[in-house]
Amino acid sequence: MSAPSYGRAFALMREAAGEAWGAYTRHAFVEGLRDGSLPRDAFLHYLRQDYVFLIHFSRAWALAVVKSETHAEMLAAVATVNALVAEEMQLHVGICAAAGISQEELFATDERSENLAYTRFVLEAGYSGDLLDLLAALAPCVMGYGEIGTRLTSERTSDVYADWMNTYGGEGYQGDCAAVGQLLDNALERRLGKDFENSPRFATLCDKFRKATELEVNFWQMGLTP
Amino acid sequence: MSAPSYGRAFALMREAAGEAWGAYTRHAFVEGLRDGSLPRDAFLHYLRQDYVFLIHFSRAWALAVVKSETHAEMLAAVATVNALVAEEMQLHVGICAAAGISQEELFATDERSENLAYTRFVLEAGYSGDLLDLLAALAPCVMGYGEIGTRLTSERTSDVYADWMNTYGGEGYQGDCAAVGQLLDNALERRLGKDFENSPRFATLCDKFRKATELEVNFWQMGLTP
Amino acid sequence: MSAPSYGRAFALMREAAGEAWGAYTRHAFVEGLRDGSLPRDAFLHYLRQDYVFLIHFSRAWALAVVKSETHAEMLAAVATVNALVAEEMQLHVGICAAAGISQEELFATDERSENLAYTRFVLEAGYSGDLLDLLAALAPCVMGYGEIGTRLTSERTSDVYADWMNTYGGEGYQGDCAAVGQLLDNALERRLGKDFENSPRFATLCDKFRKATELEVNFWQMGLTP
Amino acid sequence: MSAPSYGRAFALMREAAGEAWGAYTRHAFVEGLRDGSLPRDAFLHYLRQDYVFLIHFSRAWALAVVKSETHAEMLAAVATVNALVAEEMQLHVGICAAAGISQEELFATDERSENLAYTRFVLEAGYSGDLLDLLAALAPCVMGYGEIGTRLTSERTSDVYADWMNTYGGEGYQGDCAAVGQLLDNALERRLGKDFENSPRFATLCDKFRKATELEVNFWQMGLTP
Repeated sequence: MSAPSYGRAFALMREAAGEAWGAYTRHAFVEGLRDGSLPRDAFLHYLRQDYVFLIHFSRAWALAVVKSETHAEMLAAVATVNALVAEEMQLHVGICAAAGISQEELFATDERSENLAYTRFVLEAGYSGDLLDLLAALAPCVMGYGEIGTRLTSERTSDVYADWMNTYGGEGYQGDCAAVGQLLDNALERRLGKDFENSPRFATLCDKFRKATELEVNFWQMGLTP
Repeated sequence: MSAPSYGRAFALMREAAGEAWGAYTRHAFVEGLRDGSLPRDAFLHYLRQDYVFLIHFSRAWALAVVKSETHAEMLAAVATVNALVAEEMQLHVGICAAAGISQEELFATDERSENLAYTRFVLEAGYSGDLLDLLAALAPCVMGYGEIGTRLTSERTSDVYADWMNTYGGEGYQGDCAAVGQLLDNALERRLGKDFENSPRFATLCDKFRKATELEVNFWQMGLTP
Repeated sequence: MSAPSYGRAFALMREAAGEAWGAYTRHAFVEGLRDGSLPRDAFLHYLRQDYVFLIHFSRAWALAVVKSETHAEMLAAVATVNALVAEEMQLHVGICAAAGISQEELFATDERSENLAYTRFVLEAGYSGDLLDLLAALAPCVMGYGEIGTRLTSERTSDVYADWMNTYGGEGYQGDCAAVGQLLDNALERRLGKDFENSPRFATLCDKFRKATELEVNFWQMGLTP
Repeated sequence: MSAPSYGRAFALMREAAGEAWGAYTRHAFVEGLRDGSLPRDAFLHYLRQDYVFLIHFSRAWALAVVKSETHAEMLAAVATVNALVAEEMQLHVGICAAAGISQEELFATDERSENLAYTRFVLEAGYSGDLLDLLAALAPCVMGYGEIGTRLTSERTSDVYADWMNTYGGEGYQGDCAAVGQLLDNALERRLGKDFENSPRFATLCDKFRKATELEVNFWQMGLTP
């Protein structure tokens, strides 16, 4: 599959991630969503862990506001924090409620180490580096879900997980991916120039992107083992 | 003047700030707003510096999202970031535009050292400490403006700066002050207990509050010297 | 085994960590060091990962210098950074060199996710919290190794891993543990008072200590699977 | 005066700082040290403020350890922390003691806002950016004192402040400046390539260097007004 239109830097980083990208976006968990074979238990377990994930992921996007250098960067990052806190987290609350998992139970979910590893990696990359390091570590989650959502919307053979697929394959989320891709491209050009991929810095950012991608693979794997 | 109803911690910290609090909330700049004697040049100079201030102040509130430990803390901090970025900063853009200062000119304002000192103090307190340190450094600005707005709304003898006074004395901003006061009280109780004022930690927080108050005094003074 | 004399806070946090503490300090990897049954391959694999660990652990101790509030806290943290960078990391270089692993090969070690999870958790806890959060997350590694070293020095039935046991059971390292325990006790008393264990804050710190302990268990487990 | 041999990046940044560099390195306070006309009161007042400055400056250098990406960067930053904490701060303690200012009195020095503005600017630049942002903000103090020390050693017309001039003009300190210059050059090349001055990023770093230089001017000015 060719890269979705989420900008130039994303396409380059995705390419540089090599096999890890496919291991993430075509993981057995994803295929189970596609054909409906994923056990409900695994899905709900994943949703609960993902809720804890989104708390820390929202914190990381708030850190992107702190690390912004222009008004446009601030506005783009604030918009993402709002989308995460106000919308995506509510989706999880809704699906869990429908499955008989109360909000209290959801909040009390014990964080698995595969989950913790990922968000702490992203946050630490952001704290220790600048906005570019942070965005490179944030991108695989945002855009990988967009790519998966798009593919599953057209390739799905079951409606069991239609809500999930429609969310990430839908216009709203696809627009978010394009906006984050634009933020990433602009931030890179502003700091490293139009030919940012020729800066040694870019290789380090690709390493962060790949590492985050590998941690996504671990996250799906955790989803399969409630 | 007794403390406005912005919560228990604010009242205690305000008291502990001693004379600095009055030097801030009854500064000559403030009295010039009240009776309309403040030169227009000084006001516009202040507004432009305050715009730069709000950029970094919004970043500091975004840091409060990152440093939150509960969902309620996150939501309260996100709401404040939105209020600052979407509303308060637009107010400045509007008044400046009406005075013939373009948005480009506003964005290009050269940051004065009295301005820089304040926001970097707040951000560094937040980075180096936890949410409590950050909130203690953020509080004097939020609540001092609320107290000034309330007083000036009733004591003003001129309508020259009515827009400014109505903004900070109005229901919307007063509600923000109460919400931040609640956030501060709750954050303290959660970490230090109901009798938080007896923790040695509280004295350190009062020091941060007082230092930020002193930096507010410097900021007004800068306002008088375009 | 009763708690070693590394201070009051350590004893309380160790107790609060419950079974996780034993799972860490009496892990199969540790028993393999004690009776010499640990395969050499596993030991060298562990050493290489531990070298990468120490790089990030030193960074975390440097963050403790940044987050210090007194001169005494700074000096204690600087001393630990020096001990880590100048001594403990050299120990690894030496043992690896003797085993035919060059410094270049050591530096190029690919970081395992169990390793990454631990150090990023510690660094993020430090960045997002204050010195207490950071010290609570740092303590299990420092003091757990001290406790293991002491026990193994007296209970060992083999000299295969004598160098390792003598290092952590020796006077130098035991002194470091006592110094860190003192730093932790003093930092707690300064911020939360003599009866710091009664502050709600202390429960949160115990959570961080326990989580770091669980990540140590994962680290040993990784050591068994080169 | 041509730039001292503290590396390529320093020479470029110093040039880009324009008149601010001369305003800093040839400030009236500096000339007062050179010809001995600086009142003793002002010198002691400066020394006490500089002691507080060095506490936060050491914290900023410790942050450089946290933000290092290679072993060599870590070692260079650790060496500077040690030089600051173990040596430079002791120099101040010694001179103050000889002048009848006890260590307790020195520790209790009330931080002036010109002082606070500078260190918080540096620390915040470091927290919000990466190692390059931090080094660009740290460089003017380290290297400016080196340049001043060298010039005064040859141009001085009085021995009143010989101790101070010999310290910063001496081999030890000059070696520190060269080492920091090397660290800066290497860090830039590693991240932005050999022609780092052509990266848009370099202009931002020059801005940080110039701002820190301006804050040095304010610091000297503060020194003249005990």
